[in-house]
Amino acid sequence: MTALWSEFRRNPLLWLLVFLPAVFAAESLQPEAHTLLFVLSVLAIVPLATLLSHATESVAAKTGDTVGGLLNATLGNLTELVIALTALRAGQYMLVKASIAGAIVTNVLFMLGASFLLGGLKYHMQEFNRVTARLQASLLFLATIALLIPSAVKLADGEASAFTQQLSLGLSGLLICAYALGMVFSLKTHRELFTAAEHGGDHETPWPMGVALTTLAVVTVLVALVSELFVESVQQAAESFGMTPAFVGFIVVALVGGAAEMASAFSGARKNRLDLSVGIALGSASQIALFVAPVLVLLSYVMGPTPMDLRLWPGAVVMMLFATLTASLVTNSGKSAWFVGVLLLMVYLIFAMTLYLLPPASA
Amino acid sequence: MTALWSEFRRNPLLWLLVFLPAVFAAESLQPEAHTLLFVLSVLAIVPLATLLSHATESVAAKTGDTVGGLLNATLGNLTELVIALTALRAGQYMLVKASIAGAIVTNVLFMLGASFLLGGLKYHMQEFNRVTARLQASLLFLATIALLIPSAVKLADGEASAFTQQLSLGLSGLLICAYALGMVFSLKTHRELFTAAEHGGDHETPWPMGVALTTLAVVTVLVALVSELFVESVQQAAESFGMTPAFVGFIVVALVGGAAEMASAFSGARKNRLDLSVGIALGSASQIALFVAPVLVLLSYVMGPTPMDLRLWPGAVVMMLFATLTASLVTNSGKSAWFVGVLLLMVYLIFAMTLYLLPPASA
Amino acid sequence: MTALWSEFRRNPLLWLLVFLPAVFAAESLQPEAHTLLFVLSVLAIVPLATLLSHATESVAAKTGDTVGGLLNATLGNLTELVIALTALRAGQYMLVKASIAGAIVTNVLFMLGASFLLGGLKYHMQEFNRVTARLQASLLFLATIALLIPSAVKLADGEASAFTQQLSLGLSGLLICAYALGMVFSLKTHRELFTAAEHGGDHETPWPMGVALTTLAVVTVLVALVSELFVESVQQAAESFGMTPAFVGFIVVALVGGAAEMASAFSGARKNRLDLSVGIALGSASQIALFVAPVLVLLSYVMGPTPMDLRLWPGAVVMMLFATLTASLVTNSGKSAWFVGVLLLMVYLIFAMTLYLLPPASA
Repeated sequence: MTALWSEFRRNPLLWLLVFLPAVFAAESLQPEAHTLLFVLSVLAIVPLATLLSHATESVAAKTGDTVGGLLNATLGNLTELVIALTALRAGQYMLVKASIAGAIVTNVLFMLGASFLLGGLKYHMQEFNRVTARLQASLLFLATIALLIPSAVKLADGEASAFTQQLSLGLSGLLICAYALGMVFSLKTHRELFTAAEHGGDHETPWPMGVALTTLAVVTVLVALVSELFVESVQQAAESFGMTPAFVGFIVVALVGGAAEMASAFSGARKNRLDLSVGIALGSASQIALFVAPVLVLLSYVMGPTPMDLRLWPGAVVMMLFATLTASLVTNSGKSAWFVGVLLLMVYLIFAMTLYLLPPASA
Repeated sequence: MTALWSEFRRNPLLWLLVFLPAVFAAESLQPEAHTLLFVLSVLAIVPLATLLSHATESVAAKTGDTVGGLLNATLGNLTELVIALTALRAGQYMLVKASIAGAIVTNVLFMLGASFLLGGLKYHMQEFNRVTARLQASLLFLATIALLIPSAVKLADGEASAFTQQLSLGLSGLLICAYALGMVFSLKTHRELFTAAEHGGDHETPWPMGVALTTLAVVTVLVALVSELFVESVQQAAESFGMTPAFVGFIVVALVGGAAEMASAFSGARKNRLDLSVGIALGSASQIALFVAPVLVLLSYVMGPTPMDLRLWPGAVVMMLFATLTASLVTNSGKSAWFVGVLLLMVYLIFAMTLYLLPPASA
Repeated sequence: MTALWSEFRRNPLLWLLVFLPAVFAAESLQPEAHTLLFVLSVLAIVPLATLLSHATESVAAKTGDTVGGLLNATLGNLTELVIALTALRAGQYMLVKASIAGAIVTNVLFMLGASFLLGGLKYHMQEFNRVTARLQASLLFLATIALLIPSAVKLADGEASAFTQQLSLGLSGLLICAYALGMVFSLKTHRELFTAAEHGGDHETPWPMGVALTTLAVVTVLVALVSELFVESVQQAAESFGMTPAFVGFIVVALVGGAAEMASAFSGARKNRLDLSVGIALGSASQIALFVAPVLVLLSYVMGPTPMDLRLWPGAVVMMLFATLTASLVTNSGKSAWFVGVLLLMVYLIFAMTLYLLPPASA
């Protein structure tokens, strides 16, 4: 408990945990107050994600580099995975897909851009390990191609679904392979190239193993419970806020699910440890694209009402493509100044504005 | 007057000023001779653009770096702006948009390509400040995304116009912000990175302030008057030359409006001052994309018959995208040889040929 | 004959020549056994391509650098050219186009990727001359734009064919010009930049001139004869294997036609001479895109039943574009490790899987 308590003092986001009982209370008292439930569940997920993130890192820190890297790589986006699984079980595939694409775009543009901007406002010029950036950008580029090619092939109506289903399964397998091989490359055979880009780890004291594992288990269950309320309320809440479903899935869910990682990435940038920020932002994006998304496709065969495919709507693919291209271009030099952050954020704003203004029927 | 006269001897383009009285004479004598009026107005705009460009630089040179940079950045494409405004008032939005997209593509591919080729024929290998090239290419890339995303979103027919209108206003605001921040970055906070890339300035003796300001005022009015004849005659003249409207807007107007800058860029390349050429070509392109185009959208609410949006036809967006990508790829190394120029010019020729052959109904 | 014999011992692929008499025997005995004829003709083309490739190199080695470079540049893809010409005469334009696009994509992704992977499994990190890679990637990018722009322009139905025809002729001329100028650049004016990237040549003892020229003539005729059986049998064989026509043209024909070059590229990579591999893979791709494809368009006016245009179906253009972009990104640093190869092969697998699963009617 002392470990948890010292966390509270260090990490102000954790005070948002007061909204955890609030959301459950609201649910039993006012089950029809969708907007309230939506807001409370968002506020409750953020601190849970923070706890989950620290618990994962603590377990990873204790288990040695390779197992730890593996753990970080599989559980690093546990929050996003649990939210998406809840939406998957509810058959809300549109929300699942929007939140996947949105998480990738938000990590690549908003998290990276705000890190560059925050770091750049404090330091004139910052440097980072561009080998890491290049590896992650390449993996993202691969995932983008995997999502884009099926949409580029024009199909007669009747044939589309069987083909898309088979292709999605095959592509999911390929992406998971590529992700696994990328880990072999960066954690085993060529680890010396990636030294400066360790994912967090040493910036906070790790918890003892028992605390970490218990936290991991308990908080995952809590996230699952809150996610259910979130997924149930999101659509009606969005309407009452005047937001399109595409905007909610793409922007709101992505910002909520990634809040914990953003806190780490931004604090890294302010401490002139941009390697950390770039590693978290791009690493998290490529993890979602090459691990979380294919795993969801595979799990949809077990858990969903019907199998889910990997096909996104054209606008989302185009946004992923340009997010990836922009990230490739700006990280190519391994240097950053504030304006690089502005550029990334501007691209994000263009996307967010388009989705916000989009007439609901066209999403 | 001595200053003006010495200009005439140095800059042979100015002798084209004889076509200025000719075009007004032709208009009062033969108001229906569209082809003649078109040719004469083209020939008259070129020297006016040259005078305008030198006057702007002279004012900029006297007012210190920051104000000067600001002036160059806002008035540097005054000719294009005046032509576009004339077309805007006449409600010819297709011509306005074609000339904007065309000016960007022409600057990026033709002006830069011909500079590389002309320089490369004289020098074996030339170098330039690639930080400048990268900044401008990034800004162009941002503008391309802003123009592309709205087209990537499929819309139901009824909803399109309100959505496109709002989005165009929002994107115009974003682009102007990005342009302003880019100036803060290159003129203020990180100016040391851009030292070698000053926009012209010292390569010609600046005029005295009085001459410069008078020239600026008088010539702007003259350009506006000739532009009116140009815009009125262009469509019928194009038909009689067998050119499509897309070709005229994209290629002819762009070459006419940019003639003065091309003269400076090419002469810079021949003097092995490629920084100057790259700065003019890419700087002018990004100015049109991030400043002139959004300003025209905003002004269309005041001056046009109906508001204009930022939406281009798909072919134009694709051309802008590939022009920007090509420029990013070839300027990435900061070195140039003649073949790099050939590559850029070939891409330009592909575009020009496509637009020239295009059946009129499909533009 | 001794020269030929020593080849047999060094190059195990040549033993496949036993299938040459087999395919002619099968044709006269079982002219309807399409699947058998298809398999035998594939097996017979591979060693013929190897002989053709070595004969070309031998002639090139004897004739000095410039003429030799020219010969390599025009005859280097003689096998692909002969197969495509046979399909052209048979009016199978879909197969011609699929095999062109497929050869480019296969060279860029499979040949380059497998070279990086095979080299990377033996050496920790390999380097290559990135100037060569950049030149070839730029040429490929130019060709991709030339193939993409006509498809990006939307046309009314009636006008499409005349416009596409004229544009294809014009673009073919442009591409051949660009290819010729690229040779002037790399073989004449700036040859010092490309020194390490000589196309093969010195890695095998060249044959005497007489042997080489005779082999060139005889084997070209043999390839033409076998190609005829191949083109006749391919469609029905594909059906019986359950392969789509797009998959056969894009993947099978490309792998068959490029087998000889692949052998050289892979052996170069295993000997840590990655310059050789990159030069062969990208050089061959750009040769097909900028020389073979336009020549086929021009020849279709003389040899084909109707003129052929340069228009590909959208999926093929997208694949070419992403193959070229991927190659640009990964060769940019001039360094390679095994994972770079995996990335390229993964992109190739995505394409191959999509084409394999594609319902036949949609190709």
